Amino acid sequence: MTIDRRTMLRAGMAMFSGAAIEAAPARPSRTVLRRIATEEAWSTPEHVAALCAIGQTGWDNLDARSWGKVTTTSQLARRLVDVDERGRVMQALGIDMHVLSLTSPGVQMFGREQAVAMAATANDRLSEIVRSQPSRFAGLASFAPQDPARAAKEMERCIRELRLNGFIVNSHTENEYLDLPKYWEIFEAAEALDAAIYLHPRAPADTMAKPYADYEMQAAIWGFQAEVGVHAMRLMLSGVFDRFPKLTLVLGHMGENVPFHLWRTDHWYERRRASAVSKLRPSELFKRNILITTSGVEHAPALRYAIEVLGADRIMWAIDYPYEEMAPSVSFMNDVAISEEDRAKVFHQNAERVFHIAPA
Amino acid sequence: MTIDRRTMLRAGMAMFSGAAIEAAPARPSRTVLRRIATEEAWSTPEHVAALCAIGQTGWDNLDARSWGKVTTTSQLARRLVDVDERGRVMQALGIDMHVLSLTSPGVQMFGREQAVAMAATANDRLSEIVRSQPSRFAGLASFAPQDPARAAKEMERCIRELRLNGFIVNSHTENEYLDLPKYWEIFEAAEALDAAIYLHPRAPADTMAKPYADYEMQAAIWGFQAEVGVHAMRLMLSGVFDRFPKLTLVLGHMGENVPFHLWRTDHWYERRRASAVSKLRPSELFKRNILITTSGVEHAPALRYAIEVLGADRIMWAIDYPYEEMAPSVSFMNDVAISEEDRAKVFHQNAERVFHIAPA
Repeated sequence: MTIDRRTMLRAGMAMFSGAAIEAAPARPSRTVLRRIATEEAWSTPEHVAALCAIGQTGWDNLDARSWGKVTTTSQLARRLVDVDERGRVMQALGIDMHVLSLTSPGVQMFGREQAVAMAATANDRLSEIVRSQPSRFAGLASFAPQDPARAAKEMERCIRELRLNGFIVNSHTENEYLDLPKYWEIFEAAEALDAAIYLHPRAPADTMAKPYADYEMQAAIWGFQAEVGVHAMRLMLSGVFDRFPKLTLVLGHMGENVPFHLWRTDHWYERRRASAVSKLRPSELFKRNILITTSGVEHAPALRYAIEVLGADRIMWAIDYPYEEMAPSVSFMNDVAISEEDRAKVFHQNAERVFHIAPA
Repeated sequence: MTIDRRTMLRAGMAMFSGAAIEAAPARPSRTVLRRIATEEAWSTPEHVAALCAIGQTGWDNLDARSWGKVTTTSQLARRLVDVDERGRVMQALGIDMHVLSLTSPGVQMFGREQAVAMAATANDRLSEIVRSQPSRFAGLASFAPQDPARAAKEMERCIRELRLNGFIVNSHTENEYLDLPKYWEIFEAAEALDAAIYLHPRAPADTMAKPYADYEMQAAIWGFQAEVGVHAMRLMLSGVFDRFPKLTLVLGHMGENVPFHLWRTDHWYERRRASAVSKLRPSELFKRNILITTSGVEHAPALRYAIEVLGADRIMWAIDYPYEEMAPSVSFMNDVAISEEDRAKVFHQNAERVFHIAPA
């Protein structure tokens, strides 16, 4: 690791003063790094239409409520579907690659048979996009947790035949979390395939929805981290990572608050170790089995905290397009005051390793 | 602010390396600072007995479950009640003052009449302790949100007659949060009395309990932050702080994850500003109306993050005795690599200002 004295001093000053590092003099020119964005939502017209239709059913569910505000002719729908528009913006901004994934909540709000079929269709379409522009797009495959056995089969197909790069799952399915043993086939498949699972947000499950149902709190402003955070904690405490020691999980949004709480989590885990299910200390497990991404969080102190506590090898860049804009995310990652070695890890090296993307 | 070069370099290094600052050479001797611990649980034998009794009722509630494991003869019960033992440990460790408060969930699990009476009795007893040892103890008064009008009256009595230092409330009451307008009398009273309200944890409300009901997750390891976090967010988004601009709220446990999410909260608030109820940006409001304490979090990176993002004027030291031990909390706050000016603010100056404690 190379850190020049000036960088170190600036970092130290910022810690004490709260001064905006971004206001420091422009950084000297340097090698342009490869930029791989790792949580980039995508969809098909059919999938968007199905989600918008769910939004019109009156289903008393927070995700249904959110989709009730989206139409198939909205800007959001267009940007999810239009790969060419996306590519032009990427090119203009010097973004080398989007790791695409079916937008949340994926297939997880549909009935079992529909969900299984939808995932297969979406994965086929995604693999066509990746094959047609392999230097620009990679893809995370979807599966239907509603049917764990067929999910495991689809996961194998997506890696071995479609050559996709990993998986995405949008937190709970029918208000259940993946720590239930009936879902462990999914983790067994992911570990055997050496493919990471991105644990992406959706709104809080019905079983915890009520406090999040006001002030539009169910989504990115607060509800998403609550939903994924409790899911991640359940997985960490359930023994999943004892049973599947090589499983890799990815959390977006700077880790959904789990890293900021990790000392306290460890502390109470130690005090209850005798009765704990997982034999691994949460922070040990986190640094071995979990990575985080920067999606939707352009906040230098949070990134530096994460680097200090988790290490730069555990953090990947992500935009969260089209829910977030590409340009500010690139600017943030270009300019944030971290070492150049760490910047390269976050911008592309970790993504290449975790998602098996060939180096440029 | 005085920062010597060595301190700054150590801080900068730690940011990049994750190296244990605690392993650095012993700090040079310096003035011993006054130490005021601000989230220190206390109880009466009658209150402990009533909570233990609730734990035996079979009530399907996460706090009831926790209290079902406590007995009136336990070490916890003794340490909550025994002020003399507490004082001896404080003296041995050089802790000048505990700001005492009735242990969670206070009076909030009892029926309205019982809760109102219990709060008054507990406040009387607390004020006796404070009057008998005014240099060693301060006190935060309890009230029964079950009856907002009588709560406001009791609040006035506690400040004007009993001369207590502020208030404590343990998150939800009967699964309701204080952003509901029927509770605003409580905030009106607190603002008029210039007395802060400590928003203390209890386990997640029944309306969000299920995902937190396994792996002993309902308490400090994860559930507490989820419960207080959503409560704090509801208050921040509800317009309470527009209506009561001088209201002061205190969050324990390094802010219950709200500070780590503050950039993202602001970002989504801005995107929905047109439909937002509160006219204040969450981070503006936080830095004006909310303080945090270090209770139960002896983690240098988290404290430094909080200082950088919120400012050292917004952070107070707390132990969380008897749920946490006093000695490691003192050692942490003595030795953590922050500026001496900030250490004085966190160890005592902010507590003196917020809780109206006379300087030593």
